[in-house]
Amino acid sequence: MADSNQYVPPKVWEWDSEANGRFAKMNRPTSGAVKDKILPKGNHPLQLYSLGTPNGVKVTILLEELLALGEEKAEYDAYLINIGDGDQFGSGFVEINPNSKIPALLDTSTNPETRVFESGAILLYLAEKFNAFIPSNISERAECFSWLMWQMGSTPYVGGGFGHFYAYAPEKWEYPINRYTMETKRLLDVLDKNLTNRRYLCGNTYNIADIANYSWYGYLVLHNAYDASQFLDVTSYKNVTRWAEEIEERPAVQRGRRVNRPWGDEKTRVLERHSSEDLD
Amino acid sequence: MADSNQYVPPKVWEWDSEANGRFAKMNRPTSGAVKDKILPKGNHPLQLYSLGTPNGVKVTILLEELLALGEEKAEYDAYLINIGDGDQFGSGFVEINPNSKIPALLDTSTNPETRVFESGAILLYLAEKFNAFIPSNISERAECFSWLMWQMGSTPYVGGGFGHFYAYAPEKWEYPINRYTMETKRLLDVLDKNLTNRRYLCGNTYNIADIANYSWYGYLVLHNAYDASQFLDVTSYKNVTRWAEEIEERPAVQRGRRVNRPWGDEKTRVLERHSSEDLD
Repeated sequence: MADSNQYVPPKVWEWDSEANGRFAKMNRPTSGAVKDKILPKGNHPLQLYSLGTPNGVKVTILLEELLALGEEKAEYDAYLINIGDGDQFGSGFVEINPNSKIPALLDTSTNPETRVFESGAILLYLAEKFNAFIPSNISERAECFSWLMWQMGSTPYVGGGFGHFYAYAPEKWEYPINRYTMETKRLLDVLDKNLTNRRYLCGNTYNIADIANYSWYGYLVLHNAYDASQFLDVTSYKNVTRWAEEIEERPAVQRGRRVNRPWGDEKTRVLERHSSEDLD
Repeated sequence: MADSNQYVPPKVWEWDSEANGRFAKMNRPTSGAVKDKILPKGNHPLQLYSLGTPNGVKVTILLEELLALGEEKAEYDAYLINIGDGDQFGSGFVEINPNSKIPALLDTSTNPETRVFESGAILLYLAEKFNAFIPSNISERAECFSWLMWQMGSTPYVGGGFGHFYAYAPEKWEYPINRYTMETKRLLDVLDKNLTNRRYLCGNTYNIADIANYSWYGYLVLHNAYDASQFLDVTSYKNVTRWAEEIEERPAVQRGRRVNRPWGDEKTRVLERHSSEDLD
């Protein structure tokens, strides 16, 4: 990043489809389907098309929590969307999520069927539908909305920013690494301070804001995400660690984390989920 | 960005407080209050602490829309948070938003008073409170949640990514500019395709998803944000332009855009808003 070799952007940006390294096939400046591909569909009310990334596991954790409560209408079929193969650009997937990102949900129990995309929207939709894991008191509900939206707006700096430049970009560049490291540490500190006197993010009760944030920040502090635990000094965020460990002990969280997961220990992988037995 | 001079990150990242150029005072790796500062408080039910950025105007547009409907309980005092002066790190502000970002809302009409932070959470909170600008039908509501969350998760790539590296970073670096330009154009294309056959984002009815997305993407296509209209070729997104122009014609939108705005035409600036007359 030497001044002497400064880049001058063109008047009008044009796509160089070869320029994007390992993500060249996944990232493009246009949207929409690039191939005809009908999605499979199972018998359960909810059809999930996903992958076990932080955004994906948010939804499977909530679904497993709902099933643990005895909500039979939360039964779901979870199909794997292989983003490396471009499944997200198939016509069927794009009909459910025009943004071509996992997770995407189809609720076949409504008339007409309901599509939901964006992990935060799916959490909110399911929490309202089952009236669970979301407070009904107006002030508590506002706190839940705040921390849920905080996750949605902050983790693009963690994943798309820090993770990308620290772990995935073709070179290590100091400025973006510093920029996104500082923000990631600030975000961890926001969570940590909030959890000083609170068991869960909004107080004494576990809700969708915990599920959303655990899926990202729990992954950072407990699972050496991006091989960056030491670099980020994650052990210094003691309250985040305590909170994430408590959440991770929940059976539904352990189940949800395994769904649509094509990596990690082969014995625990569950590429597709169509019944509770797939996880037993 | 020459290979020959590759950066090697340290084992453990440490903050160089001088290294961040014009944002050195605003960005830090820790959270919380750095000074005692009580927030002012007016007589209206809603107290808003904000600044007329895209995230700020989302809320003032919705409040003006609610007032235009005759919702007297949507009357608000809007105080300016000068982020260049560090107002967001004052103790009173941090009590309402531990994340130290605008906008932050205090609803004094509830018992106890309700804090709400994150612009998307404030939109959702107010829409529910007044049962307006949010669909009640479950499928339409899901579509509204989806596009609202899509805005929250996508514009960090537009503002914190594209805007930062194209307009604000101390140097022009090709890789991050390409990365975030491609994503910004993809996002504009997602919106544009969705608006091919829809008047508003979710169909025939204007709701908080439109307000949220207009505040960012309308600013991009109509107001030469980041001086990047030509670079992004924004005129090619004809449906986004048509939709943004229609929204911008709404009187409440024109009013909301002026609140807490310390820049632009001096005659139209409204630094603080305490009554409708401040905007008449």
